[in-house]
Amino acid sequence: MSVLRLGLPKGSLENTTFELFAKAGYKIEGASRSYYPTIDDPEIECVLLRAQEMARYVEEWILDAGLTGLDWILENNADVVEVAELIYGKVGRKPLRWVVAVPQDSPIQSAADLQGKRIATEAVGMTKRYLASHNVEATVEFSWGATEVKPPYLADAIVEITETGSSLRANNLRIVDTVCTTTTRFIANKEAWKDSFKRRKVERLAMMLQGVLAAEKKVALMLNVKKDNLEKVLSLLPALHKPTISSLADDPNWFAVMTIVDKDMIRDIIPDLIAVGAEGLVEYTLNKIFF
Amino acid sequence: MSVLRLGLPKGSLENTTFELFAKAGYKIEGASRSYYPTIDDPEIECVLLRAQEMARYVEEWILDAGLTGLDWILENNADVVEVAELIYGKVGRKPLRWVVAVPQDSPIQSAADLQGKRIATEAVGMTKRYLASHNVEATVEFSWGATEVKPPYLADAIVEITETGSSLRANNLRIVDTVCTTTTRFIANKEAWKDSFKRRKVERLAMMLQGVLAAEKKVALMLNVKKDNLEKVLSLLPALHKPTISSLADDPNWFAVMTIVDKDMIRDIIPDLIAVGAEGLVEYTLNKIFF
Amino acid sequence: MSVLRLGLPKGSLENTTFELFAKAGYKIEGASRSYYPTIDDPEIECVLLRAQEMARYVEEWILDAGLTGLDWILENNADVVEVAELIYGKVGRKPLRWVVAVPQDSPIQSAADLQGKRIATEAVGMTKRYLASHNVEATVEFSWGATEVKPPYLADAIVEITETGSSLRANNLRIVDTVCTTTTRFIANKEAWKDSFKRRKVERLAMMLQGVLAAEKKVALMLNVKKDNLEKVLSLLPALHKPTISSLADDPNWFAVMTIVDKDMIRDIIPDLIAVGAEGLVEYTLNKIFF
Amino acid sequence: MSVLRLGLPKGSLENTTFELFAKAGYKIEGASRSYYPTIDDPEIECVLLRAQEMARYVEEWILDAGLTGLDWILENNADVVEVAELIYGKVGRKPLRWVVAVPQDSPIQSAADLQGKRIATEAVGMTKRYLASHNVEATVEFSWGATEVKPPYLADAIVEITETGSSLRANNLRIVDTVCTTTTRFIANKEAWKDSFKRRKVERLAMMLQGVLAAEKKVALMLNVKKDNLEKVLSLLPALHKPTISSLADDPNWFAVMTIVDKDMIRDIIPDLIAVGAEGLVEYTLNKIFF
Amino acid sequence: MSVLRLGLPKGSLENTTFELFAKAGYKIEGASRSYYPTIDDPEIECVLLRAQEMARYVEEWILDAGLTGLDWILENNADVVEVAELIYGKVGRKPLRWVVAVPQDSPIQSAADLQGKRIATEAVGMTKRYLASHNVEATVEFSWGATEVKPPYLADAIVEITETGSSLRANNLRIVDTVCTTTTRFIANKEAWKDSFKRRKVERLAMMLQGVLAAEKKVALMLNVKKDNLEKVLSLLPALHKPTISSLADDPNWFAVMTIVDKDMIRDIIPDLIAVGAEGLVEYTLNKIFF
Amino acid sequence: MSVLRLGLPKGSLENTTFELFAKAGYKIEGASRSYYPTIDDPEIECVLLRAQEMARYVEEWILDAGLTGLDWILENNADVVEVAELIYGKVGRKPLRWVVAVPQDSPIQSAADLQGKRIATEAVGMTKRYLASHNVEATVEFSWGATEVKPPYLADAIVEITETGSSLRANNLRIVDTVCTTTTRFIANKEAWKDSFKRRKVERLAMMLQGVLAAEKKVALMLNVKKDNLEKVLSLLPALHKPTISSLADDPNWFAVMTIVDKDMIRDIIPDLIAVGAEGLVEYTLNKIFF
Repeated sequence: MSVLRLGLPKGSLENTTFELFAKAGYKIEGASRSYYPTIDDPEIECVLLRAQEMARYVEEWILDAGLTGLDWILENNADVVEVAELIYGKVGRKPLRWVVAVPQDSPIQSAADLQGKRIATEAVGMTKRYLASHNVEATVEFSWGATEVKPPYLADAIVEITETGSSLRANNLRIVDTVCTTTTRFIANKEAWKDSFKRRKVERLAMMLQGVLAAEKKVALMLNVKKDNLEKVLSLLPALHKPTISSLADDPNWFAVMTIVDKDMIRDIIPDLIAVGAEGLVEYTLNKIFF
Repeated sequence: MSVLRLGLPKGSLENTTFELFAKAGYKIEGASRSYYPTIDDPEIECVLLRAQEMARYVEEWILDAGLTGLDWILENNADVVEVAELIYGKVGRKPLRWVVAVPQDSPIQSAADLQGKRIATEAVGMTKRYLASHNVEATVEFSWGATEVKPPYLADAIVEITETGSSLRANNLRIVDTVCTTTTRFIANKEAWKDSFKRRKVERLAMMLQGVLAAEKKVALMLNVKKDNLEKVLSLLPALHKPTISSLADDPNWFAVMTIVDKDMIRDIIPDLIAVGAEGLVEYTLNKIFF
Repeated sequence: MSVLRLGLPKGSLENTTFELFAKAGYKIEGASRSYYPTIDDPEIECVLLRAQEMARYVEEWILDAGLTGLDWILENNADVVEVAELIYGKVGRKPLRWVVAVPQDSPIQSAADLQGKRIATEAVGMTKRYLASHNVEATVEFSWGATEVKPPYLADAIVEITETGSSLRANNLRIVDTVCTTTTRFIANKEAWKDSFKRRKVERLAMMLQGVLAAEKKVALMLNVKKDNLEKVLSLLPALHKPTISSLADDPNWFAVMTIVDKDMIRDIIPDLIAVGAEGLVEYTLNKIFF
Repeated sequence: MSVLRLGLPKGSLENTTFELFAKAGYKIEGASRSYYPTIDDPEIECVLLRAQEMARYVEEWILDAGLTGLDWILENNADVVEVAELIYGKVGRKPLRWVVAVPQDSPIQSAADLQGKRIATEAVGMTKRYLASHNVEATVEFSWGATEVKPPYLADAIVEITETGSSLRANNLRIVDTVCTTTTRFIANKEAWKDSFKRRKVERLAMMLQGVLAAEKKVALMLNVKKDNLEKVLSLLPALHKPTISSLADDPNWFAVMTIVDKDMIRDIIPDLIAVGAEGLVEYTLNKIFF
Repeated sequence: MSVLRLGLPKGSLENTTFELFAKAGYKIEGASRSYYPTIDDPEIECVLLRAQEMARYVEEWILDAGLTGLDWILENNADVVEVAELIYGKVGRKPLRWVVAVPQDSPIQSAADLQGKRIATEAVGMTKRYLASHNVEATVEFSWGATEVKPPYLADAIVEITETGSSLRANNLRIVDTVCTTTTRFIANKEAWKDSFKRRKVERLAMMLQGVLAAEKKVALMLNVKKDNLEKVLSLLPALHKPTISSLADDPNWFAVMTIVDKDMIRDIIPDLIAVGAEGLVEYTLNKIFF
Repeated sequence: MSVLRLGLPKGSLENTTFELFAKAGYKIEGASRSYYPTIDDPEIECVLLRAQEMARYVEEWILDAGLTGLDWILENNADVVEVAELIYGKVGRKPLRWVVAVPQDSPIQSAADLQGKRIATEAVGMTKRYLASHNVEATVEFSWGATEVKPPYLADAIVEITETGSSLRANNLRIVDTVCTTTTRFIANKEAWKDSFKRRKVERLAMMLQGVLAAEKKVALMLNVKKDNLEKVLSLLPALHKPTISSLADDPNWFAVMTIVDKDMIRDIIPDLIAVGAEGLVEYTLNKIFF
């Protein structure tokens, strides 16, 4: 039997990844006890790996595919197939940034000002390439952690990942430049991608994961509306998703409308819909959605 | 830009309020670190306040609007606009009562028997008005907490809030009278209410919160039924919400019925519906509902 | 007023049972404080009992009905009405097995090899009947717990319950034979079953519990499909549940299809449906389902 | 190498036993992962067992020695050597009692009234012997747990262990009689006791455990006193332990006194000592004490 | 039998108080379940009360004695006997201060600048007396909590308790003046104090509590020293406590010295002692100390 | 004022280090909030750093001194003053080892067999030097964590730290060789060491830390003994520490003996002492000890 060797990210993305897989219909168990957890698909074998190392092992075909961040793909300079972008992090659902940060009162204002400075970072390769692209020479030191507390005593600047910048602000650091914007990626080995079994396995898995992530941002609305108000109701609905309209069997003057709306718009669209005649309006949660 | 200054209740209602706002589409963050949490609507500024103080600050227009209990509106004797009643507490979804309670073996049987007694309470104003309305004179002492353990040593009677009476019973107290029945209220300052921006903001927010609370008590039922049984099925459904009936495209003798039913009735109505011919009956959870 | 006296299992099934009842529409409270918790149905009185003792008390009509495992019904050799099978455990939703287990390197390979051995078990009655049915004589000792660590020092073999066998493997034990396969059962006293009030009460409760358990394994799919692809879409759907097909009011060439699918099939069926033309495919969670 | 096979009580006494052994100088590790924990003495092998089963395995020489309660020695009617009494429980340091308890309003007032009743208990053997000694016949049922909630519905009386009686009172039960007073015992197999290596091992271990338990109840007092007051100070000290008196090198009129006092007496004896001239009084904690 | 009615502080001081009593030899139990916990002295009855209310109930002789802060004695303006100062807080062992605090950028620089301002505080009485003593008129509002977040929106200034000022700094507040420095006090009712039984009870309890608190700041040092170095060693020891010097029986040229030293000095005094010839230096913990 | 800049290890040693400093008389606070915690000595400034980076920053005189493991001093090849060895780890008090480990069934039996293999490790420098010293060439990959789960799929061998080898065994790995044995070291910069203020500061701190660690392994014994038995008692005591013998003032035939004994010997020495006539034997805990 063919088997897909799949790497899952150990650490900050770990639990979120397992929850995502579970929602997508793949149950992973035993990860608290073993780095080789079981998955309820006999055609997949999982291994937990730090995101930092994933791309390296996929590139060398020790794994067929894996999930990791774009940042670590770049850091490893890995030559892999990028199957899908999956925008999720430990908590949030937004891209993260690697930035150059310096103390608030530092004279450093741009990449050029880094010349000759000491920079601490977990991403030495990415930082060196960034400096090279700006023709800047500086000392880049590997940081084993807590990079953001190092300036100004232990480093002049840092290159560090940030979501909202709040940890940087809390350490009195100022962002000078963005080195890289990153999201989670589903990657595959180039040879594995030529194997039809493995490619189909990866593509279906990616499709289900994307269906789950898409559904997190949407809700379903069902409402009844009189024929006279149907036009006005429909004009308020977003164009992205074609609403399902059915006539009511017991009263031809009424229609039932079902549609999908962005969660972020709900608090504005519902009062508007009611204002133009929507009745019996009900909102549902979705598990998955595929347009 | 106009901004609505909104007070949220610190303490027992706090987490429930945040969850309610989140379900309504308003994400409040940072409340564990700050009394001025952020909300994802730039037109609202939040402040956390004890429910006891809310009405006072809304009345004096330091805040435009706020959520607090009817009890503390009365205790503060505050002159504010009551926008909406939101029936929710820390855990339950029922009104609470402030009661006069005395030891089981106390001779006190009615308000009149409180004459000359010592009464401990957190709601001194409300208690004094209650006594005045019964033409009773008694000593009312502010209690800093644990009021229910004070009788008989430290007080003859107490005026205290209760949901089920179980804490009173556990302290061997007997309820003599109800001073006030209270629920959460969305209140607004009288001047702020005349500002169309602020009023619209408050009304839409109240609408969404009410849609969430209403949905907590309901579920959606979908079922298929043969034309012959449709009448009997419909007769079992509650009158409140008009069911959505559509004919099935592949069999004109069958109808799909979608309706909204009180959660409390479900365990009785489902067996009845099946008994009169409902098939493929499925129950769904709702996020929000607006009739 | 007639009242149904109902026994609920204390211990490993306890919380899962309460959650199941809550989903079924029956709220049980106070179980953390009392063995006689309250239920929000005045026609039912609950008592918490160890699953091991349940069948005995139901058989003797101290209780009208109760939930316990088939294993303990057999162990007690109890003469009761088996109303319904409810396949749920502490965590999982699968039957469990009582097995004969011995050390990996034990010479025991079958029931016959147990002759003259010392067997530790919590189910002394069931074990003795098993041995008798194989014409084997052995010492059966009641084990107060941690039975799986007793071999080889404190016992030659054990009869113990297992879900996945992992605890047995962790203790270096090998399964020799299955003594009994068990699931949770809703049982009633034989006389109580003749009382129409009590029987109706038990049957409706069992129906709701089964509706909840069935829904855990299913999801609803809604999708739109062009007339030309309808046939292909329908051919992919499982036969068990007849899909609800309605024509769209605004375009007679399109149909909306709603169907119920096993969760386990979702990850395979969704890509297939999309491949044959399903559009706007959305998945929902169900609370209860009744075919 | 000779080895002592020692049984340690799993369950309520477990952690307290390990702490006691640690204080006595014996470090037990791995008990959270295994029933065969390691101890830092190569001449001892440990096994964790329920207290209920300990005496049986010691009597049959599967174990050389073990710790269990007197109650379970009696329940098993085991013929073992009682090496030492170790008065400690899960939390407290007092003997526990097995009692006959009945509902507050039960007519049962003495053992004789149990005639023909149903009695639930975990200690069936002990209860039957108790009844026999009173020439009473009654049904004794093994209770799997929560025995104290069974009367009056599921039993007429119970025989249950109690420390303070508070759990019985909380369940509205009244104590009728004491069946047995119990403390922890260090027991040994009769044959093992004849082996000089094993006997010495057990005796030294018991000595150290007793030294630790004795020290928990004592503190050391050191004080200085003038020659004139020495007599009065000494007269206040308990007779049990001879105080150590030394003269001060720099002032022959002063003495330093060191003595051991019961913790329970400290709050009374210190003010008295100071009143008769003790100075520089200091109290120390003891690890172990041997008189 | 005479009984001392003793009030213990509920809330932030609660656990520390119980620990302190336990070390002093008085075991208080049941405080997690009841406001009337038991104490292992039949001549004392305890009640848990908020520190804010303690002095009031002691003054009115509802209680004989109690522990509370000086701040709340002053706030209540209570006429009670102050038996002992016990310097301990929830965590630390230092006095706390009530201060006037204002926003960093407030123009308020002294008490005089509070004229006409709005001040929020939990200690309304103390604040009003403070203002009166400075001939200042201002609005003093009772604050139900989180007082430090009120300026500048909800108050111009606050009067609040602080230990290190860190909470004030975190809220961008500046200390303008100290209203009151407070520590825990053991207080007694004036009439109760005339009762010799009650007074002796209170005095002995206070003595033991002070012995425990004093011991927390000290350690015992024991060392050996040659006759020639004795002088130098003694000159380094603090004058407060006379060391105990004894000659060694086996070598008249050596002395054993035992002394009590402040914990804070230990890290400096030990190297100094060793430098002048102290040998075999050992440090012990004390339970209680009485000079 | 001169100040010592001191690096403390972040991570596994962190809490143990703080506890050790606290016992030594140095209170470190705020480490949960900041990497620059405060210490109650104004002449010291602390910074928390990963042990991996400590030696680098001390060598470059960014810090004056710091605590780290010998392993990371070697890995960084750092030229620093080794002031003291402090044998303590996260839990235990033993040296740790870095070992070469391979799968149980690997053909690798010695360093020579590593030729051409892939080795994963967190200590790349140390591993490369080890290989060079054996004239072996192999690929050494930096491992971001969970190194012990990498063989055989992701690496042929690992170089990893181990205390008891249990984690290696749990992953089916076999130890081939020891690369380095490591303990915690107190290190200082070479220039800082020439500054008399900084050197004195470091030496006194090291002395106190060693006094604490030494005391953890010892207890004090006090006993009384008759003149006739004194010789026998003394002969049993360890030679390391000279006992303090004093004659009793009230009976010249008795002596009081105080001595220091290794904790590990206590369970053997106490029964022996009692056997030769020691009486009133008492054991105490020590805080610090200096021979």
